[in-house]
Amino acid sequence: MPAYSTNMRLKFPILALTLEIITIILFAVFVVYDDGKHGGVSLFPDQFDVHVMIFIGFGFLMTFLKRYGFSSVGLNLLLAAFALQWGLLVQGLWHLDEGKIKVSIFKMINADFSTATVLISFGAVLGKTSPVQLLIMTLLEITIFGINEHLVAEVLKANDVGASMIIHAFGAYFGLAVARMLYRPALGNGHENDGSVYHSDLFAMIGTVFLWMFWPSFNSAIAEPGADQLMAVTNTYFSLAACVLSAYAVSSLVEHKGKLDMVHIQNATLAGGVAVGTCADMNIGPFGAMIIGFVAGIVSTLGFKFLTPILASNLCIQDTCGVHNLHGMPGILGGIAGIVAVALGKKDGSAVMQAAALASSLGFALVGGAMTGLIMKLPFWGQPPDQNCFDDSIYWEVPEEEEGEESLAHGDHSMNKAEA
Amino acid sequence: MPAYSTNMRLKFPILALTLEIITIILFAVFVVYDDGKHGGVSLFPDQFDVHVMIFIGFGFLMTFLKRYGFSSVGLNLLLAAFALQWGLLVQGLWHLDEGKIKVSIFKMINADFSTATVLISFGAVLGKTSPVQLLIMTLLEITIFGINEHLVAEVLKANDVGASMIIHAFGAYFGLAVARMLYRPALGNGHENDGSVYHSDLFAMIGTVFLWMFWPSFNSAIAEPGADQLMAVTNTYFSLAACVLSAYAVSSLVEHKGKLDMVHIQNATLAGGVAVGTCADMNIGPFGAMIIGFVAGIVSTLGFKFLTPILASNLCIQDTCGVHNLHGMPGILGGIAGIVAVALGKKDGSAVMQAAALASSLGFALVGGAMTGLIMKLPFWGQPPDQNCFDDSIYWEVPEEEEGEESLAHGDHSMNKAEA
Amino acid sequence: MPAYSTNMRLKFPILALTLEIITIILFAVFVVYDDGKHGGVSLFPDQFDVHVMIFIGFGFLMTFLKRYGFSSVGLNLLLAAFALQWGLLVQGLWHLDEGKIKVSIFKMINADFSTATVLISFGAVLGKTSPVQLLIMTLLEITIFGINEHLVAEVLKANDVGASMIIHAFGAYFGLAVARMLYRPALGNGHENDGSVYHSDLFAMIGTVFLWMFWPSFNSAIAEPGADQLMAVTNTYFSLAACVLSAYAVSSLVEHKGKLDMVHIQNATLAGGVAVGTCADMNIGPFGAMIIGFVAGIVSTLGFKFLTPILASNLCIQDTCGVHNLHGMPGILGGIAGIVAVALGKKDGSAVMQAAALASSLGFALVGGAMTGLIMKLPFWGQPPDQNCFDDSIYWEVPEEEEGEESLAHGDHSMNKAEA
Repeated sequence: MPAYSTNMRLKFPILALTLEIITIILFAVFVVYDDGKHGGVSLFPDQFDVHVMIFIGFGFLMTFLKRYGFSSVGLNLLLAAFALQWGLLVQGLWHLDEGKIKVSIFKMINADFSTATVLISFGAVLGKTSPVQLLIMTLLEITIFGINEHLVAEVLKANDVGASMIIHAFGAYFGLAVARMLYRPALGNGHENDGSVYHSDLFAMIGTVFLWMFWPSFNSAIAEPGADQLMAVTNTYFSLAACVLSAYAVSSLVEHKGKLDMVHIQNATLAGGVAVGTCADMNIGPFGAMIIGFVAGIVSTLGFKFLTPILASNLCIQDTCGVHNLHGMPGILGGIAGIVAVALGKKDGSAVMQAAALASSLGFALVGGAMTGLIMKLPFWGQPPDQNCFDDSIYWEVPEEEEGEESLAHGDHSMNKAEA
Repeated sequence: MPAYSTNMRLKFPILALTLEIITIILFAVFVVYDDGKHGGVSLFPDQFDVHVMIFIGFGFLMTFLKRYGFSSVGLNLLLAAFALQWGLLVQGLWHLDEGKIKVSIFKMINADFSTATVLISFGAVLGKTSPVQLLIMTLLEITIFGINEHLVAEVLKANDVGASMIIHAFGAYFGLAVARMLYRPALGNGHENDGSVYHSDLFAMIGTVFLWMFWPSFNSAIAEPGADQLMAVTNTYFSLAACVLSAYAVSSLVEHKGKLDMVHIQNATLAGGVAVGTCADMNIGPFGAMIIGFVAGIVSTLGFKFLTPILASNLCIQDTCGVHNLHGMPGILGGIAGIVAVALGKKDGSAVMQAAALASSLGFALVGGAMTGLIMKLPFWGQPPDQNCFDDSIYWEVPEEEEGEESLAHGDHSMNKAEA
Repeated sequence: MPAYSTNMRLKFPILALTLEIITIILFAVFVVYDDGKHGGVSLFPDQFDVHVMIFIGFGFLMTFLKRYGFSSVGLNLLLAAFALQWGLLVQGLWHLDEGKIKVSIFKMINADFSTATVLISFGAVLGKTSPVQLLIMTLLEITIFGINEHLVAEVLKANDVGASMIIHAFGAYFGLAVARMLYRPALGNGHENDGSVYHSDLFAMIGTVFLWMFWPSFNSAIAEPGADQLMAVTNTYFSLAACVLSAYAVSSLVEHKGKLDMVHIQNATLAGGVAVGTCADMNIGPFGAMIIGFVAGIVSTLGFKFLTPILASNLCIQDTCGVHNLHGMPGILGGIAGIVAVALGKKDGSAVMQAAALASSLGFALVGGAMTGLIMKLPFWGQPPDQNCFDDSIYWEVPEEEEGEESLAHGDHSMNKAEA
């Protein structure tokens, strides 16, 4: 039984309305239309591709849980809608122009990017947090992301065009640090709702395939137009293609009777996009990109199979979606590949600064995530009791089930008791 | 028991083939390729974004009903495929060029727009009409839309770039007038199929998220390229973001135990796109757009919760999808915002003409919808009897259910009896 | 009981890793970045539209089977990821530039095109083949496609901008020839898993609608920019619209009590895109395109209703998805329309060469498919025994079902016995 209520009736509306009203006031003070000198609407298609990844890709990727689809796609929309407003403000404050933030498509893409970090961290704590906790995480993570991004891009002047370090590694380790703070020993033996059903796995594949298709846009959206951008598209495209083959092969190799595992297919096939991010606009050759993707597919699949259980049992980090395997390790791999590529002269820059950027991203993520997790752990944010984790019905009106589906109806009953 | 048969075997094929053959003949007489002077393929990405909203967005948004997904996405495709051909003809006849309609991408976007009105009206009568009735509605509504659009755009010269008035308010009140004519008292106590199941709500979220993402394209597609178009994108983007926060907050505020309601999340989060439509290319400031979206999210959610039941019980208007809350009230709100914005000099124009445009749109919708509804009410169009409303199996071959799902199989039985 | 094991544990990983490593080596030897002179990133939006058709469109279209969704969308991703790499190599070897393949967006679109042939053939053998067999088919089909494409485009110099002949007819008849070789008499009486359930049909509609929307991009992607490309968009757009009306009408006409059949709606509504492919950039007039689409919708629907059962019972060709009706006959119709249109002077070219191109495509498809089918029939590729056809659980970890769904759980049991 929770000491504090999980009822969101006042907490959530007050927080959401307050955040939005403050945001509107800050927009009124700081934000003006762009004068059109920063790309105008020509970047529009890129922006929509990234938008699709944020809202469809991340949103549906997390619908794999049998009873948590409303929260996955619904809270994804809520958090992203707030994050892109807040991200525009936080990022814009570093680059004021006559005291104003001039909102261009380019800035909107960057705000979408900051949103991605929150959604990655959301994956680590999926099913174990209330909407109020998640809005607080969004507020803090976007802010800390803004500081690290400024440091990496403006001070260290490191390359990270596809953001392996500043988005993927940052988002993953931030989320893992939060998950560590919110550790729930009672979930150690598994939870009846912490799994998929047949159709929830198909919904998740919508997310996977949209992410896979549009990843070349993500990695190339802010590349220099022309040869660099074409290189970023090409590298990402072939890294992802090679990653699919290695992820499928290793999934079959490690699973019972050589079967394929949907968890690997939904996630590890994307690791090539993460890992090639930093190097995407570097002259590493298409085959170089393919090697990175090939390795990422192997590392990610092995991580899902062998590392996730160890993280939970030995390090007390319960990583619901396995973001460590999709974003964490491939993000670090991407950062290291970037250090090597810069050292080999594949792009102007300093290998030392690349390494510093990776270290900075990991440091801000771990410290920022731990601090954020401590705040989220305060007992009055309405977090779900253990027995109601991974269950939409604690925060959503869920339609009554058909009579034939008794086991689900039964699940609802036990939940209602816990709420009482 | 219906006095007339719901069997579509002759009625529907004859009507569909006749309409298509007439359309092909009219195309042969009137329609030629464009000479490429009206934008060529450069508007192509905009057109596809609008296309995605029409076919995926509207189609899947309506799949929320437990047993009406085939009709929602299937009849959406049918009606839209006919409407875009018919809309091109109707709109083109106002602008003949040497006696011909030169079909440009710009004209195809406008035809897609006219299609949207039909799909909005479809939402009001969803589950209670036959495919034959819906084709008749499409034919008439597109025609009446064409008259009102010509009046608003060419005679009154009113601003309505995102079509709050001429599409959203028009489509909603047209549909509500039809629904009033087709009132079914026996559905007053609810219908067992007039609700969602878990996965049907997730399918509907595909529609919601695609509509949400591509709405900035909808509102900016026919804006003046350059600063105006960028403004339309920016305003719509932030209006929608603010709307999400207020819709979620109010949903939690009005629902039992502070839970979120999928009906609100699927629909009210989009009201910001509707309401900012008329003002989208006006210099109202990003924060002005956010205020419009914020208010629209509140109004729309409250409408779903409190107004829809009143409409049904007091005004005999049964609005299946709640189009009054998503398109009707936000559309009027958008029209009023446009009047105010023009009066304040945010855009060249006349506030009186804006008001006349809103009045014209509502007038044509209500009168045209009522007339159309009377024609649709003729008893031989194969409309479903009350007990078979909201059930695909009256017009579709539906796969047999698995043995375990007894209640659904039972539903089928009762339906078969009614048909006999 | 299978004489050979269906266990993929060694066969599949070894084949997949070997193919990918060979591919990476060939990329290292042959493939370099493009110098940007072949369109740069300006073709990018076209490429993504085609990409969406390949990965979402084809992938989800095949999820209609009740227990084969993982394989449909999952193996679609695997085969496409390999095919686009292999296709780039095979096609590039015909056009070496200083001994290298310069990988432009244009070449990536062409590689995506070659991928489409494999996915069409996959539809014919869906549910009856192992992942190993399908990788072998991909390897061989892409290679044979490359020969035929070179012959049609470079030697015969035939028009086929939307690829009615070289992709659709080729892919369909290749797949049908493979299916003939893999004929399974025991499936003649139907199979309990060879059908849809309610939600699997809705997943399939995601594929249908995305294919339908983006088909104008497919048919125009490699058209000459300007008037030709606009013509290709316009023709495809209206052909598809007319096709929807005729497909719905005929479906209702031939089905029990005038009901619509999801199989027809999911597939025959797309036949207009296939059939107008060859003529897409020809000056046939919008109404000419509509006539082609109108006829294609009728032919395709009648094919599903009457021809598919005859193919299975009389010709021993079991065509799971009915690719003969969606790609085969409409592809031939498109080839013939192209011959007529060229003969009528609607486009520069030779009607004889158009006819030769159609004959070449059919010939290579039938002979190549038969040879490929013979190789795939070798008994050690792990093909499923008859009783496990159309069932994901033989190659995938499938989540346990809820207790209420007894019939499905029972299906799992019988499958496990067969595997033992």
